[in-house]
Amino acid sequence: MRNDMQARAKELDAADELAAKRAEFVLDDTVYLDGNSLGALPVHVQDRVADVIGRQWGSLRIRSWDESGWWTAPERIGDRIAPLIGAAPGRVVVADSTSVNIFKAMVAAVRMIQDGPGGGAGAAVRDEIVVDATTFPTDGYIAGSAARLTGCRIVPADPADVPGLLGPRTAAVLLNHADYRAGRLHDLPGLTAAVHAAGALVVWDLCHTAGALPVGLDEHGVDLAVGCTYKFLNGGPGSPAFLYVRRELQERFDSPLPGWNSHAEPFGMRPGYEPAADIVRGRVGTPDILSLLALDAALDVWEGVSMTAVRAKSLALTDFFLECVEAYVPAGRVESITPAAHAERSSQVALRCPGAEGVMKRLIEQGVVGDFRPPDVLRFGFTPLYLTFADAERAARVLARTLAGTPDGESAPA
Amino acid sequence: MRNDMQARAKELDAADELAAKRAEFVLDDTVYLDGNSLGALPVHVQDRVADVIGRQWGSLRIRSWDESGWWTAPERIGDRIAPLIGAAPGRVVVADSTSVNIFKAMVAAVRMIQDGPGGGAGAAVRDEIVVDATTFPTDGYIAGSAARLTGCRIVPADPADVPGLLGPRTAAVLLNHADYRAGRLHDLPGLTAAVHAAGALVVWDLCHTAGALPVGLDEHGVDLAVGCTYKFLNGGPGSPAFLYVRRELQERFDSPLPGWNSHAEPFGMRPGYEPAADIVRGRVGTPDILSLLALDAALDVWEGVSMTAVRAKSLALTDFFLECVEAYVPAGRVESITPAAHAERSSQVALRCPGAEGVMKRLIEQGVVGDFRPPDVLRFGFTPLYLTFADAERAARVLARTLAGTPDGESAPA
Repeated sequence: MRNDMQARAKELDAADELAAKRAEFVLDDTVYLDGNSLGALPVHVQDRVADVIGRQWGSLRIRSWDESGWWTAPERIGDRIAPLIGAAPGRVVVADSTSVNIFKAMVAAVRMIQDGPGGGAGAAVRDEIVVDATTFPTDGYIAGSAARLTGCRIVPADPADVPGLLGPRTAAVLLNHADYRAGRLHDLPGLTAAVHAAGALVVWDLCHTAGALPVGLDEHGVDLAVGCTYKFLNGGPGSPAFLYVRRELQERFDSPLPGWNSHAEPFGMRPGYEPAADIVRGRVGTPDILSLLALDAALDVWEGVSMTAVRAKSLALTDFFLECVEAYVPAGRVESITPAAHAERSSQVALRCPGAEGVMKRLIEQGVVGDFRPPDVLRFGFTPLYLTFADAERAARVLARTLAGTPDGESAPA
Repeated sequence: MRNDMQARAKELDAADELAAKRAEFVLDDTVYLDGNSLGALPVHVQDRVADVIGRQWGSLRIRSWDESGWWTAPERIGDRIAPLIGAAPGRVVVADSTSVNIFKAMVAAVRMIQDGPGGGAGAAVRDEIVVDATTFPTDGYIAGSAARLTGCRIVPADPADVPGLLGPRTAAVLLNHADYRAGRLHDLPGLTAAVHAAGALVVWDLCHTAGALPVGLDEHGVDLAVGCTYKFLNGGPGSPAFLYVRRELQERFDSPLPGWNSHAEPFGMRPGYEPAADIVRGRVGTPDILSLLALDAALDVWEGVSMTAVRAKSLALTDFFLECVEAYVPAGRVESITPAAHAERSSQVALRCPGAEGVMKRLIEQGVVGDFRPPDVLRFGFTPLYLTFADAERAARVLARTLAGTPDGESAPA
């Protein structure tokens, strides 16, 4: 059985059209299945950042705001991320953290609805924010703050129940495209349409899908979206997040963080605030150049890559990993909580397992790096750009050996 | 006269106890008087960042959140900045941009006052935010947003007039320690005491004084403060800003940006928000590690430096520059708008000058780098750690030559 799976891995790797991309990353002999937490380092980031520090900062100094394109980096890099999430140029800006962008998006969404064309006298007051209660907690914390500051109330919901909770009082809905624990992919087109039918606006959190699968923001009429760049986009630890605002809504984007970078004429240094006409109004303060330009360099790995190919490989990798787990791990030792249906699966596999924290520790000691999420989840992220099917087979094999209590020796399941 | 000034510069440089610090920066033959906009590159930042990228991100990857101290970097680096601004450990956190920190501080200040011990039934409603109208514009824009979201109104003021505008309705006051154009230093101890006497809280913006002169936050009982780290702290373009919260107020710091990093147990991933007990509640999202650790490296230049010595050299440099300008530039061609009194001067000199934009352009072409601020201000920042008195003399000499209309030749004023 082990020989069969290893032979299959070899065939799949030989046929992999993205296989050459692996050489563009710094990797070693570990199986790195935590790219959904922190993407691996693209090889040429090191030299690029050395140039940013040595030449742009060290030598050109303030001249680099113009000459090295520092000032316009947030929009320029936004335009590089845009095609990866199905957006046209001018829709995406890179700035601040995901949490800060969720705040901008939620307050702006509520204001658009409350101050918008349908919000006049006689209209019902829209004062409810529906929030995915299964999502990464920061989304709920920040949405709660946005609600408190705009006089709304939070309606927590399982994404599947959202359509039934929408109504004339719904102002905005915050959803995560993929659940960070189970890896469940939510129905972005269907839920977006449902929110629109109810007269509200939707904000999607793409942290776990940007760079992992096609998103189609423009195509599906998404209103606002945010996402991080350090997972499947490999931008580096804590690299700046992005904010997407649908073209038609940009003129009504009324930011709760109207810093000088979002001004129509920032160097006019005028006391009165006047927002920029376009996506620039999503900016706040001075952009974080070192991190931004490291991300810029990291995005080079996407040259010539189709997100359709990425998605196909992602599903093949997770299918194959689940198959190896089933083949190697005795029945009942782990339970996959990641949906079997492709339409409901993101680019990770989550396995419930008694003693998961200790099991993950031992996996890491043996060179298989995933992560533990309380209370009992082993989480394995599959980054199609740099993982192989051999990696998936090895991970399942080491997991089986670990659960069998075999120590670190090279013996493997039958 | 020129020989006199050059001889004096030589003597002053020979007696300069900070002179050796210059070697810790990457400098060339330009006179860099824009360190109040973007500080020069400390020499060893390059190697440190290469290690962060190559070893910490590239090799250790997610293990670095613990093993390389990434997770605690915002507080650890805050503790390194603290002594430079007169704060004890545990008062400062490094995160986000200055604008974002102003927002946190202003909303939190209003909440502390409105929900505080003196804010019960029968008390006057405190709903006014007094804002320095002469300050860098982002402060006013962000304070305006904080006012809008908390039901307050903005009272714009010249800092000198603030005491007369305080009253039973004042909730919070936002002041800049130094005016970014004229370089006027405001009376932090006196204004802080006046705000407290009126029962309100004060937020100081230290962008133009942190690293340039002693601030004494703890000593003067400042409530909240923010500042950037890329000017006199040399942290690099757009490096993260800092937030100071007085120890006694930390438990009441109710952030409008309660991201998961500010949670008492961030990795508990719990749906309910519970803020950390200490300065950690000033954090928001995942810290921007590359920029944070570049700043961390840049702060090494402060080892063994006393802020008293920095202040003494700063005043001596600006005195000497003004003296050279007076000696070299024909009367009436420029007018200093920087206060002559030391107590009112920060670490820059601003000269009003007809055609200032073109004059600055020609100065830069001749290797004297300051900046232009509309409508007619030549701004020269003096960073005591890496500037010499010879630099100050040369800058004044090139300015005189430029105003005399002499082309780029080496002839100098008599």
